[in-house]
This record gives sequence, C-alpha cells and structure tokens, in this order.
Amino acid sequence: MQTIFEQRTQGQALYEITRPVAEWVRPLGDGLLTLMIRHTSASLLIQENADPDVQRDLISYFARLVPSANDPSLNYLRHRDEGPDDMPAHIKATMMPVSLSIPVANGAMRLGTWQGIYLFEHRNAPHTRQVAAHFSRD
Amino acid sequence: MQTIFEQRTQGQALYEITRPVAEWVRPLGDGLLTLMIRHTSASLLIQENADPDVQRDLISYFARLVPSANDPSLNYLRHRDEGPDDMPAHIKATMMPVSLSIPVANGAMRLGTWQGIYLFEHRNAPHTRQVAAHFSRD
Amino acid sequence: MQTIFEQRTQGQALYEITRPVAEWVRPLGDGLLTLMIRHTSASLLIQENADPDVQRDLISYFARLVPSANDPSLNYLRHRDEGPDDMPAHIKATMMPVSLSIPVANGAMRLGTWQGIYLFEHRNAPHTRQVAAHFSRD
Repeated sequence: MQTIFEQRTQGQALYEITRPVAEWVRPLGDGLLTLMIRHTSASLLIQENADPDVQRDLISYFARLVPSANDPSLNYLRHRDEGPDDMPAHIKATMMPVSLSIPVANGAMRLGTWQGIYLFEHRNAPHTRQVAAHFSRD
Repeated sequence: MQTIFEQRTQGQALYEITRPVAEWVRPLGDGLLTLMIRHTSASLLIQENADPDVQRDLISYFARLVPSANDPSLNYLRHRDEGPDDMPAHIKATMMPVSLSIPVANGAMRLGTWQGIYLFEHRNAPHTRQVAAHFSRD
Repeated sequence: MQTIFEQRTQGQALYEITRPVAEWVRPLGDGLLTLMIRHTSASLLIQENADPDVQRDLISYFARLVPSANDPSLNYLRHRDEGPDDMPAHIKATMMPVSLSIPVANGAMRLGTWQGIYLFEHRNAPHTRQVAAHFSRD
C-alpha cells in the first residue's frame, strides 16, 4: 500500500501534512506507516501543533545555526551554483529526519496529543515537494 | 503487534530503555521493530552504552548548542509560556530522531556491540514519557 | 529478508552505498526497506548525489560545528580515551539518522532524482562499518 503526498511550499517554513496522512491511513486498520521525503533540501518533522510560535522559533533558530551562504561565517562553502540558500538547506536536511515511522492502530496514527507531522522547507523559492508513503498492514 | 513503553524521567539526561525493548522482542522471532516517541520535547537515540561519560558529554554539548531561552543568544525566541527549557527542548527534538527502525533476527535486535537505546529527556521537570512500539513479523 | 552491508572507510567523509542497496532490493518487488547503522560514531544519510562539493561542504560544516575535542571550545568534554575525534563523532551521530526507511516499488527505491544513500564516517582512522538491512514485502 503506497502513495505519494504532494505539498506546495512558499519559502522556509513548516507546512503541516497531518490531515491528508491521517485520512489516508484511516481505512487501513493496524500497521506501520512510513513517510520519506524525496528531496535533499527539505525535511520531515513531528513537532508541536499547538502554539504557532514554536514553528516560528524553529525557523529562527535554524536560520541562525545555518545562515545564508553569503554570511561571512560560511565563506568556506563551495556549492553555490543554486543560490545562497541551497547549501544551508542541504546542511539542515542532514540534521533533521528524512523518514518517519509511525505505528497505526485502528486507522489512527499513535501520535501524542500535541504531535503534528510537518514538512520543513529549507529553500526560499516555491517548490512542489513529494513525500513517499508506505503502509504495511499487520 | 504493538505496545507502549513508559519511562519516568527526572530532568535532562539519557535514560536507557534497551532492556525492556529487548525483552519484548525476544519471543517474536524475525522482523522489524519500530519505536516512536510520543512527545516533542524528548528524543530517541541509539548511542554508546559503554562509558557513561559519553552520555554526560552529549548532555553538555547540546546544553551549550541550545542553551536556556533565558540565555541572551536566544532572546529572539517567542514561545516562553512553558518555561525557559521548553523551546530549547523542541529545538533539540528537531535535531534528533523521533522514530527508530531496528531489524530483529531470532528475537534479537541487530544492534552493534556498543549500541544501547536511550530516551533523551530535554525538559527539567519530571515527566512520564511514552514510546510507541510496533513489530512486523517477517 | 535481511542482510548486512559492509563499507570500508578511510577517514571523515561520505561513502555512497546506493548501488549495493539498489541491487539487493531489485528482485524483491514491492515493500519497505530499512537500513540501520550498527555504530555510534558514523551515520546514515540521504543526500544529493550530483555535485561532489555538497559532500565536501557537509564535512566542512560539521567539522566546524563539532570540532576536535582538542579545540578549546570543547574543553569540558570528558570522554577522551579513544582520541580527540571520538566524542565529536558521537555528537555528530546523535544529530544525524541512525536508521532510514525507504518505500520500494517494483524493486526500485522511491528515492528522488538527486537522492543517494551515504554512510557518513565521523572517525579519522580506517573502519569497517556494518549497515543492517531489512526488507518487508507487501
């Protein structure tokens, strides 16, 4: 049982994909859900879905930890052909999950109360991102 | 085949959960074990189980990389209602695994010699943490 | 369906393992591939396989974020018996994936166009690294 979720992005931000994923697994019963992002400059996260400031603060923190390649602190970077946000995007994608595995019981993901699933876009320009999904039924 | 492991925590530290997990999979034969933490301010790690200084050094390093929100370097953070250790906990949880997938052969996890499974608590106050576990038999 | 891939490493670098993994899954049809590294001082990554400068820049960035334990900024580290590159290796292994889950359709991993699978060696001395692989057929 496989599908691909598409998510349009408009710059560096977290895009919640919990709902389409939850709807896909609802009729599937018990099993294991796997999500894998098919890109190297965006990430998959499970993070808090309550206070939107959490998402804003995550963006702010990682923008400082890995600034634009134009920042003097990153003057040693060589991969610059695709713009000053590209190599930092690869670095952030290295520090965050590329795949997530989520147990499912009775068609419901076993997420905690405050957990949502997000695509974290690390590039500035709009992109259409793909997340490969797999469900193995128990 | 699913269960939930509970782990009581007392502040920022690594709590080893290798033993209860190993006991759960022992009668299950060959397959794939999945663990997923049901929280956004704690992480799951596979790390060295030999020298306890490794755990102490991990805590020290990440406490400096992502200090308390009261630290002047993080004065831009907005999510402060749940205490100065909460937003840094979300940041650390973003940089470390939320789920782990471990092949199992003859009821034994295929961990390396020095690998143990840990829950890394990022909050200061005591918590009861839940880890959802799933086993798919070959 | 399980196997173990071995990869010889010669210092801190990314070693691509896409080809042997792709060959192993090719006859297996539809299902879920899981890879898990059996070490705590090396990581598994999915990263760009086009411009080799991306790999060089990743090594450069993380060598600065987590320098040698001889660097004054890390003078608080205690675990030093195995050399100044060992504790930094554990720290990097904490920030990067230990396991990867990849959907497979018709014997082909559902990787994106520019995605390759890499073992990121964090130690300086040569090592033989093991990656445990599991395939669950749909």
